[in-house]
Amino acid sequence: MGESAASIVVRFETHPDRYKHWKLSFPEEHGGTVARLTMDVKEDLGLVAGYPLKLNSYDLGVDIELADVLQRLRFEHPEVKALEIGSDKDRIFCSGANIYMLGGSTHAFKVNFCKFTNETRLYLEEMSAESGIGSVCALAGTASGGGYELAIACDEIVLTDDGGSAVSLPECPLLGVLPGTGGLTRLVDKRKIRRDLSDAFCTLAEGVRGKRAVEWGLVDEAPPKPKFKDAVAKRLGAMAARSKRKSFTPMKLGPLEVKRTESGAEYKYVSVSLDEKARTAKLTVRAPSGKEPESAEELAKVGADAWIVRAFRELDDALLDLRFNHLGIGTVALETSGDPEKVLAVDAMLAKYKEDGLVREVTLLVKRVLKRLDVTAKSFFAIIQPGSCFAGTLLELALAADRIYMKDEDGVFVRVSAMNAGPFPMPNGLTRLQSRFLREPERVTRVLESAGNIDTGAANKLGLVTFAPDDIDWDDEVRIAFEERASLSPDAMTGMEASLRFGGPETMETKIFGRLSAWQNWIFQRPNAVGERGALTLYGRPERPEFDWRRT
Amino acid sequence: MGESAASIVVRFETHPDRYKHWKLSFPEEHGGTVARLTMDVKEDLGLVAGYPLKLNSYDLGVDIELADVLQRLRFEHPEVKALEIGSDKDRIFCSGANIYMLGGSTHAFKVNFCKFTNETRLYLEEMSAESGIGSVCALAGTASGGGYELAIACDEIVLTDDGGSAVSLPECPLLGVLPGTGGLTRLVDKRKIRRDLSDAFCTLAEGVRGKRAVEWGLVDEAPPKPKFKDAVAKRLGAMAARSKRKSFTPMKLGPLEVKRTESGAEYKYVSVSLDEKARTAKLTVRAPSGKEPESAEELAKVGADAWIVRAFRELDDALLDLRFNHLGIGTVALETSGDPEKVLAVDAMLAKYKEDGLVREVTLLVKRVLKRLDVTAKSFFAIIQPGSCFAGTLLELALAADRIYMKDEDGVFVRVSAMNAGPFPMPNGLTRLQSRFLREPERVTRVLESAGNIDTGAANKLGLVTFAPDDIDWDDEVRIAFEERASLSPDAMTGMEASLRFGGPETMETKIFGRLSAWQNWIFQRPNAVGERGALTLYGRPERPEFDWRRT
Repeated sequence: MGESAASIVVRFETHPDRYKHWKLSFPEEHGGTVARLTMDVKEDLGLVAGYPLKLNSYDLGVDIELADVLQRLRFEHPEVKALEIGSDKDRIFCSGANIYMLGGSTHAFKVNFCKFTNETRLYLEEMSAESGIGSVCALAGTASGGGYELAIACDEIVLTDDGGSAVSLPECPLLGVLPGTGGLTRLVDKRKIRRDLSDAFCTLAEGVRGKRAVEWGLVDEAPPKPKFKDAVAKRLGAMAARSKRKSFTPMKLGPLEVKRTESGAEYKYVSVSLDEKARTAKLTVRAPSGKEPESAEELAKVGADAWIVRAFRELDDALLDLRFNHLGIGTVALETSGDPEKVLAVDAMLAKYKEDGLVREVTLLVKRVLKRLDVTAKSFFAIIQPGSCFAGTLLELALAADRIYMKDEDGVFVRVSAMNAGPFPMPNGLTRLQSRFLREPERVTRVLESAGNIDTGAANKLGLVTFAPDDIDWDDEVRIAFEERASLSPDAMTGMEASLRFGGPETMETKIFGRLSAWQNWIFQRPNAVGERGALTLYGRPERPEFDWRRT
Repeated sequence: MGESAASIVVRFETHPDRYKHWKLSFPEEHGGTVARLTMDVKEDLGLVAGYPLKLNSYDLGVDIELADVLQRLRFEHPEVKALEIGSDKDRIFCSGANIYMLGGSTHAFKVNFCKFTNETRLYLEEMSAESGIGSVCALAGTASGGGYELAIACDEIVLTDDGGSAVSLPECPLLGVLPGTGGLTRLVDKRKIRRDLSDAFCTLAEGVRGKRAVEWGLVDEAPPKPKFKDAVAKRLGAMAARSKRKSFTPMKLGPLEVKRTESGAEYKYVSVSLDEKARTAKLTVRAPSGKEPESAEELAKVGADAWIVRAFRELDDALLDLRFNHLGIGTVALETSGDPEKVLAVDAMLAKYKEDGLVREVTLLVKRVLKRLDVTAKSFFAIIQPGSCFAGTLLELALAADRIYMKDEDGVFVRVSAMNAGPFPMPNGLTRLQSRFLREPERVTRVLESAGNIDTGAANKLGLVTFAPDDIDWDDEVRIAFEERASLSPDAMTGMEASLRFGGPETMETKIFGRLSAWQNWIFQRPNAVGERGALTLYGRPERPEFDWRRT
């Protein structure tokens, strides 16, 4: 497909009615408490032409559906307390990302594709940890590469012991690249498999089966074929019984109804305006304009049209659009507008009803979108000026930015709320305020205790501002900052931001994005993988790859 | 210099008498408790020709001297309790790694160079944390790039406020690469500088001076020129007074006296045998042959000829030789031979006299060498067979390996000692046994409590063995393992090992090697840095770099 995957425009909105590759059902035996999601990839329905999606291999289109169904399970199916992930294909669960798709993709597309699939797998785990929907991966057939990486993103794995079905990570031996969708990290950090066994496993193209897979810790159980279904059902039943998920009125996630033009996109609460020539964009989030739900009950009634849901779903879509469809944009101004009181009222509702099941899901959605911002490889500068609305939840946008420019002028201010104190942790597990003040942690409390409008002088003193030019300097200083940033090496900026954004503790998530992805990006660029005679390029052809053997 | 840096043979042994670029003195005012190390790089004495080392810029040769002097300070100068690092050049401390050297180096050399310089800076910090020799960086002039990275590896930084002297990390704006010698990581993780200020700092080519440098946390103090020397001396005096360093008889580090041939190297206790065609090597460490010191006093008398010192200094040299001079070697067999009782006797001495100052330094040396092994980008397979001597300290070699092959035969065994229980932590802060048993931590105690010889069956049961073929399978299985490993993509192996070796917690050290270095390696490979029109390639020339602006 060559550059085609890079030149197509990718859209991330979908709906179960339009799924091509996944089937969602609710098996009767569990009385609706268990959802069953089965993969049945249509070979000829890839996102772009040129690579048949054989053996349940996936491309971005398949993963967009997976991300969508996981989101909907949380909002639209409150009765679900456990998830089975399986396959409708015989003897195969999933053979991972399609190699011909990868081999033919640009570097930028490969990297973006891996980031999105990593996010989706982390969402699967977050769904278990935070929403009480655990997952069992039912391997009635072989799971290889990204297929096994999807399996280890589930809580439990049952592999049929039929003499043939195996789990494997053949990326290193067959393709000369890494199991980079969290595979290496989850082996040693999540399943805590011994490093030497992990080493052997990752170089064994044919993988590991049955009893040995259990012994090594690669799967949790490997029953013989006749007992397989029962074993899976038993685990799902126990998982659903353990779940602490609260019931709530389902919230249907409607379409986003975005208007896209050459120069950007207009959502209801989010605007994107592009300057492709300057390689900059402006991303504006608007505060609610009308009346917003004041209780969990009202939220359930209003549904997905509530500002907090709609605005952050829009922001999520806008970020993905920037990542995939506007590669040349390097620097993004983060702006807000509207009435801060309306945002703070929403925050107060979220804080007051945080025990409510639906409010919890909405809060978690915001958390995930903010994390998507944290790991987006663009430079973000928050612009705080008259008319801005960086209050509470929207203040998180500024705190997620690489820099904060705040105009030193009367009437310019920010506000804090309870939502800055914990509900939206970054991938490193800290709040954005904690991450900001690693050197002086007492400042976190000082900021959180700042009641009322925090003007530029006070914000500067609190440590919330990078630069605070006055009216005379503002236009020039901000303009020059964007021009300078946009002139720097995009690679250096990506590496720099990946390092500076996540000080302090590390989590499996930061390890996946910061360490594993960096190594994978390196390898994805090396001639040994993607050169004319590289392993990824030559996959499926009779020729053997030729390596530059120098170890680095 | 093109490929020349890659084709020269690098030797790591040196001696103060032969230093070209550093001067070590012991200022009278501190009565010998403070060492002063000043940089005065000789422009025309670079490791290879072709890049004048202007403005105290450094190449590998300069850093080899730095590593040597830090080692000698610990062993040969027990009276030293604080270290000043400064410059003998006017208005310049150090301008970092020489750009023309970097621009002309191969990818492999750049990566290896950065790893070595990273290790040296970590040793400087370890010297402060573990040996009570703190460091003050005296910036009487500008520190840029690697110069500032050396400064932030010190405990304290004093910058003269003379209107001109600045600290800066201009790698991103000027070269399109990262401050990859720990720079980005130390900014946010060691000095805990706010991420937005770090962002601004790292894109400001001219850097930050005086008061602002103090405010941002980039330096600890910025006195005016007339007060500079006093400020530095005061900090050094306080540091030396705080030091808990114990006195001991100096140990002179003599020459290693290695015999090198086409097919390897023979040290007294270490042998390296190379098979360049098969891309494999065998690294053998021999147990002591004669009588070894049984007390701290005897150790002081025997000096650096003691097995524990000599063997590990030899191993260190052999590892660096493999890294720099044998790039094509991908897989290394780790073997041992000799009398395990003799190793265990040394271990018992180290454990018994661990409070002794010299014993402590020796133990820390072993720790550092083992860490050097942990981060060496070669596949290591430990081979345990009749005649092997994987006991105590030497068992750590096996535990550092990616796999352990142990022959299932009578008379094959391993032994544990107190040295497996803590003194040799990995870069992640865990012992190698703890790292191995993240899944079943109770196994650590079980192994440590195993008295006497642990035969193959028992070792296997304890989880110490990856594969344990018997006499019938041994030769074939081991041969095939090496052949298979040596056939795999060297890049995939490097990325895989960097991920699998360090499960569990992260430290500044693992962040530097696992995250920052991975991003730097990626960037070092990108056309935006090293292509014909890349920023690193064009540095110093009138043309401006041309970037592929796609953000990834």
